[in-house]
Amino acid sequence: MNPLPSWRDGRTRTTLLRFVDEVTTPGGPAFVPPEARIAAFDNDGTLWPELPMPVQLHHLTEQWRRMAAERPELAAEEPYASALTGDPTWIASVVAAHYAGDDTRLPTLAEAVIATQRGMDTATLAARIGEFFATARHPQLDRPYQACAYQPMRELLGLLRGHGFTTVIVSGGGRDFMRVISEEVYGVPPERVIGSTPALRWDPDRADVVYGDGIELLDDGPEKPLRIWSRLGRRPLLACGNSNGDIDMLAYAAATPGGLALLVHHDDPDRADPAYDTGAEQALSEAARRGWTTVSVRDDWSRVFPSPDDTPAP
Amino acid sequence: MNPLPSWRDGRTRTTLLRFVDEVTTPGGPAFVPPEARIAAFDNDGTLWPELPMPVQLHHLTEQWRRMAAERPELAAEEPYASALTGDPTWIASVVAAHYAGDDTRLPTLAEAVIATQRGMDTATLAARIGEFFATARHPQLDRPYQACAYQPMRELLGLLRGHGFTTVIVSGGGRDFMRVISEEVYGVPPERVIGSTPALRWDPDRADVVYGDGIELLDDGPEKPLRIWSRLGRRPLLACGNSNGDIDMLAYAAATPGGLALLVHHDDPDRADPAYDTGAEQALSEAARRGWTTVSVRDDWSRVFPSPDDTPAP
Repeated sequence: MNPLPSWRDGRTRTTLLRFVDEVTTPGGPAFVPPEARIAAFDNDGTLWPELPMPVQLHHLTEQWRRMAAERPELAAEEPYASALTGDPTWIASVVAAHYAGDDTRLPTLAEAVIATQRGMDTATLAARIGEFFATARHPQLDRPYQACAYQPMRELLGLLRGHGFTTVIVSGGGRDFMRVISEEVYGVPPERVIGSTPALRWDPDRADVVYGDGIELLDDGPEKPLRIWSRLGRRPLLACGNSNGDIDMLAYAAATPGGLALLVHHDDPDRADPAYDTGAEQALSEAARRGWTTVSVRDDWSRVFPSPDDTPAP
Repeated sequence: MNPLPSWRDGRTRTTLLRFVDEVTTPGGPAFVPPEARIAAFDNDGTLWPELPMPVQLHHLTEQWRRMAAERPELAAEEPYASALTGDPTWIASVVAAHYAGDDTRLPTLAEAVIATQRGMDTATLAARIGEFFATARHPQLDRPYQACAYQPMRELLGLLRGHGFTTVIVSGGGRDFMRVISEEVYGVPPERVIGSTPALRWDPDRADVVYGDGIELLDDGPEKPLRIWSRLGRRPLLACGNSNGDIDMLAYAAATPGGLALLVHHDDPDRADPAYDTGAEQALSEAARRGWTTVSVRDDWSRVFPSPDDTPAP
């Protein structure tokens, strides 16, 4: 049976198959016991598309629209105004300014994120996110987000798990957002989803965990290796990302004996997921400098998205 | 086969066996699917002794002794002076003052804890802790700490896992301390150990996670339910503790449909582990008030510690 059917023959596919073979061959020089076979994957742009906007932002935009409909005084404020008109310019400019070192408007955006869930218990938020995924569709691919996971990556996740690996998502996006569908889409259970985290508080009257004020942590850059260690008590044997925020996690895996660092490069202008380097410039140059393995969407993947006849869970 | 051989027949043992039976009977009214069978256990005083001092404090005392031997100017300072003389009074008084609301000397103790590992990478600290466990013995029981785990609790952990439960340690003590031997002693792998956490930082030059300055969080009281949710994305179906710091975690489990809250009561003056209520007064009164199940060491356990012929891992 072809273990990676949506990967084209070539150096990247050979590297992956050889890596799995070497670390799982008992008695071999690169053998790694199953409990230490940790594979960490970024999510947005690595396991599924992050354009035209991160999926979580689609969900938030729907919430802001609903809130502005209930409280008309919000309609003139950002990000509610943008959500109502469907114009992503303001939100995109706040994110771009953040990466340029200007966080003037970030508190406004953060407060609007928190306002969608403040005081809500975890089960209620999970149910709301589940409702979103039941109907939401990718605006350009016109299919449910659950069917937008990159098929080659689903195959890689399955190959790794079939060889005793523990697969973990290490997302810059919201942990509790992805937990709702990570098992269905990627075969990754909630306890193996690491991500950015809103502040939580214990409500003794409800005997429940509820969302509080503020953000506990943004799981990006150096925070990613710290969160992998904190969650698992192990370092990754494989890490896979697509942007500058993944560099430290990739370096962590690359420094593990026998470890493999993988960088997905969106270099295919002719398929549904567009080509882009924005936010990945430094990662691409680090990958070249340090000899990390680059995955070319154009050259390495024979197809990008699953077909209707692919099994739903990898 | 007797599923809980070190538990005496009686209401507690019956409650445990009935609980396991009910939540695992397919089609039954209390059935819980395996992925939601989360059992959370406090460690010190619940799974093994916390007297005459928490095991981690024994390890720290050895480090402080070593540091004072290398740097004689420390010998006059606390907690190094106490470590050198073997007098636990000062350290015990800081902890007692903390619970009485006086944290005047807590920063001195915290700084000494941090000083034992500042700048150290995670593998080096784990190796040092492993060396401690290779030789350290409980001062009164005169046996390795690995042989001090309560035998009835090891049997309970094994029974739960045999019925599809995920068993998790939720300790007020140090997460990375317990991770070193949690698999060997309790059959709980590192990723399922939750506990207090020193601050970590990413060292890009070493491509490694190292211990930083300060404490990231103290996993006690309301922090325990928050950490269970954060780690697992699920609420506990069973929680078991022995002190006031476990009340919120017990309430979290008790509020889960079909959930069970267990409180270990050290009420046996005649066996190796002494009887004490200090630090558990409020927990005992809450257990009585809310109808939680109390485990009496005197009445419910036919023996406390494993024999040499018990299998090492539960």
